[in-house]
Amino acid sequence: MQLRNKDILGIKDLDRDEIELILDTAESLKWVSNRDIKKVPTLRGKTIINLFFEASTRTRTSFEIAGKRMSADVINISASSSSAVKGETLIDTAKNLQAMSPDIIVVRHGSSGAPQIISGAVKASVINAGDGCHEHPSQSLLDLLTIRQVKGQIEGLRIAIIGDIKHSRVARSNIYALTKMGAQVVVAGFPTLLPPEIEKMGASIRKTLDEAIIDADVIMMLRIQKERMTGPYFPTEREYSMLFGLNAKRLKSAKSDVTIMHPGPVNRGVEISPEVADGPYSVILEQVANGVAIRMALLYLLSGRKHEESRKEARDENNN
Amino acid sequence: MQLRNKDILGIKDLDRDEIELILDTAESLKWVSNRDIKKVPTLRGKTIINLFFEASTRTRTSFEIAGKRMSADVINISASSSSAVKGETLIDTAKNLQAMSPDIIVVRHGSSGAPQIISGAVKASVINAGDGCHEHPSQSLLDLLTIRQVKGQIEGLRIAIIGDIKHSRVARSNIYALTKMGAQVVVAGFPTLLPPEIEKMGASIRKTLDEAIIDADVIMMLRIQKERMTGPYFPTEREYSMLFGLNAKRLKSAKSDVTIMHPGPVNRGVEISPEVADGPYSVILEQVANGVAIRMALLYLLSGRKHEESRKEARDENNN
Amino acid sequence: MQLRNKDILGIKDLDRDEIELILDTAESLKWVSNRDIKKVPTLRGKTIINLFFEASTRTRTSFEIAGKRMSADVINISASSSSAVKGETLIDTAKNLQAMSPDIIVVRHGSSGAPQIISGAVKASVINAGDGCHEHPSQSLLDLLTIRQVKGQIEGLRIAIIGDIKHSRVARSNIYALTKMGAQVVVAGFPTLLPPEIEKMGASIRKTLDEAIIDADVIMMLRIQKERMTGPYFPTEREYSMLFGLNAKRLKSAKSDVTIMHPGPVNRGVEISPEVADGPYSVILEQVANGVAIRMALLYLLSGRKHEESRKEARDENNN
Repeated sequence: MQLRNKDILGIKDLDRDEIELILDTAESLKWVSNRDIKKVPTLRGKTIINLFFEASTRTRTSFEIAGKRMSADVINISASSSSAVKGETLIDTAKNLQAMSPDIIVVRHGSSGAPQIISGAVKASVINAGDGCHEHPSQSLLDLLTIRQVKGQIEGLRIAIIGDIKHSRVARSNIYALTKMGAQVVVAGFPTLLPPEIEKMGASIRKTLDEAIIDADVIMMLRIQKERMTGPYFPTEREYSMLFGLNAKRLKSAKSDVTIMHPGPVNRGVEISPEVADGPYSVILEQVANGVAIRMALLYLLSGRKHEESRKEARDENNN
Repeated sequence: MQLRNKDILGIKDLDRDEIELILDTAESLKWVSNRDIKKVPTLRGKTIINLFFEASTRTRTSFEIAGKRMSADVINISASSSSAVKGETLIDTAKNLQAMSPDIIVVRHGSSGAPQIISGAVKASVINAGDGCHEHPSQSLLDLLTIRQVKGQIEGLRIAIIGDIKHSRVARSNIYALTKMGAQVVVAGFPTLLPPEIEKMGASIRKTLDEAIIDADVIMMLRIQKERMTGPYFPTEREYSMLFGLNAKRLKSAKSDVTIMHPGPVNRGVEISPEVADGPYSVILEQVANGVAIRMALLYLLSGRKHEESRKEARDENNN
Repeated sequence: MQLRNKDILGIKDLDRDEIELILDTAESLKWVSNRDIKKVPTLRGKTIINLFFEASTRTRTSFEIAGKRMSADVINISASSSSAVKGETLIDTAKNLQAMSPDIIVVRHGSSGAPQIISGAVKASVINAGDGCHEHPSQSLLDLLTIRQVKGQIEGLRIAIIGDIKHSRVARSNIYALTKMGAQVVVAGFPTLLPPEIEKMGASIRKTLDEAIIDADVIMMLRIQKERMTGPYFPTEREYSMLFGLNAKRLKSAKSDVTIMHPGPVNRGVEISPEVADGPYSVILEQVANGVAIRMALLYLLSGRKHEESRKEARDENNN
């Protein structure tokens, strides 16, 4: 089985079979990062461009490591050094990069829809690595992989997403993904940070953090994204934390086998307390590790490779 | 046949045989970028340093992809993170890099002559990737390759170069290159942007855009380089565009098989209108694709490889 | 023989046997950079992260080249594009990187002790590439290698370190290293730039440059690090230079076979005059060349490879 589209622009475009294909492939390829020699020749001779209009150490590094562990050539372009400052349009930038024959372009951009615009202008596959307040599909897929590893399955689970839903592309991608996989999603957050369309996406709204987490199998805390806020959405960080920050005391009302997730970087003491972030329920670092595996799977599948071969390729001694 | 010098500092230093050698080698190596596995082991174990004192996504990316597709190790250094800010001289920077045994140093610098200064201080080959208002030889070579592919030959053609000649290292390199190859060059532009020495270089001046393009086989539009202008050279962009911008209406007075070129990034609506930039006469994106091939050829030839082997190496299945 | 610790945080933690192991390994591996094909497959499949919170062309490039020449995957992260700006703690940054399974993290940071904090948070090996005014072990090791190559041995030599001792992590690492190797260290500099604890570290203080260099086998000039100074430590550069700058006239009072070193980047005409920096006694560029070899040795040994194999691996034709 292969992916239907040439791009990964959002979870909205993927069906459940495709999501499971990506998760299964990631599980095969994850093995590569656990070995002494973390390299397979799978994508040798492929050119991957990381085109980042917004800075992001974590996501860029994750894609770069994923590409290099499969022997691809990875080229990093950051917006500050880009033609953008010389007045070139986004489509011109995309067409110019296409003329250099890349196989995959990974795009992060502050404006929703930018990866789609680029996709329309190029023959290469485009992966959306986060666009404005729209989608961040690889983050959502790594969240699914983490949930599946911890809970065994995703179907039937109840997931609470807490915090700044409005500015969170992670929340948006996860609501699409989790409902497609048969989970129930509830959200809670400051009223100013809960856009009305959220219920149309399949999530139900609860008024308080306590009501949202009481029957949750998984709690996803969102990062307060000050860098994306254009005005005051809540009085103070302290007040935000008192109402929607997760700490050990509050966690007592949750299920005894609850799993705590956070897409990072964590604002310690604001949306989540250090003892919860570092505590026994937290899988925050497993999420990061799964991020490399998911990105390897996306690069692998978009290069036309078949999942059926991934397990063999990852383990084949002769590949080294 | 091999190149005579260790460096590519400018077209001025190349003779016609060498230019043809580079174009022929680029045509052989271009094949690599059109394959599924875009990689040959030709420059394995060579160290290429991209030393960019000016930001340039396009040129840096083109050299980086060219190097990596031939399996070289490519190291990017940008001025903002360089020792320049700590007060080191250009020659000290060069000698320090040389001590790390690079094979080729690709230099872009805002001051004319900087690559030559570096060349004198190092044993490595130096490629000028644009220095001040002086030369940009790899851009000119990719222009020649594009013209040769479209027109079959360069000799005898009439080429019009339009716009900001004064600040354009591309114009300077192309006037040298095209006259060496037996083409006739005419230039036109705002009087303040036409330096008097241009006629000594072998180009003839025409007063208006219409006079320059009427009998041209190729029209090269130059980018208005606001970032290099130290004062007002023309009243407004609108006025510039009215006098020296190329649009569909004006193009009617050109030959029916005219070819339109632009070194990019394009200021759409200023020096060239979108319908011309994207129209049937435009080869702007072919120029970019040929850029990778030309840079592969330069890296290849400066590493002491022979053109005669390039076609075989590029096609050899066993190379993968 | 192997290194005792998983990290290289400072010379203070290394014993003499380990220092000699590193120098011997560097001498074996140096051979790689002198060949036509500067690459061995030794660290294939290893992931090295250059995590630089302070810009440093020279050191970052040296580690990057060292890693790539041994076929490791090298990932560069600079602080300006890092999660630090999003408010993540240093430990969170470290743990997140660890989750991506790097083998070695090379850290430069403006605060003393930062690499140690990172080391405690990760399973990967950490190399301190300079932390605040604390240590810069790889610089010191390359200095030792250079002295050993020029003088045959280090034991019994007299080394004068001149200049801004207070802000120099290079001075601190070298005082530890040279005394461990059996050399005698004397220091001189503006009184405001000589911290009182320097004598406890094993160095003796001389009042003037002339007194310090008169019987020195090696003179190490330090860089005036304006970027680290928080107040005025001396009246003017001119006055500094008159008292503690090394020039040809002053050098006449030194030994006839004296060796002049400087960690770079050089402030020409301040701490050292051009004719001395470029003169016959200077080994400044040998230091840079040895820097790549030392970093190769550190990456090699921290990857669990044995020194005994390094000479064979570096020379083995079949490795290519």
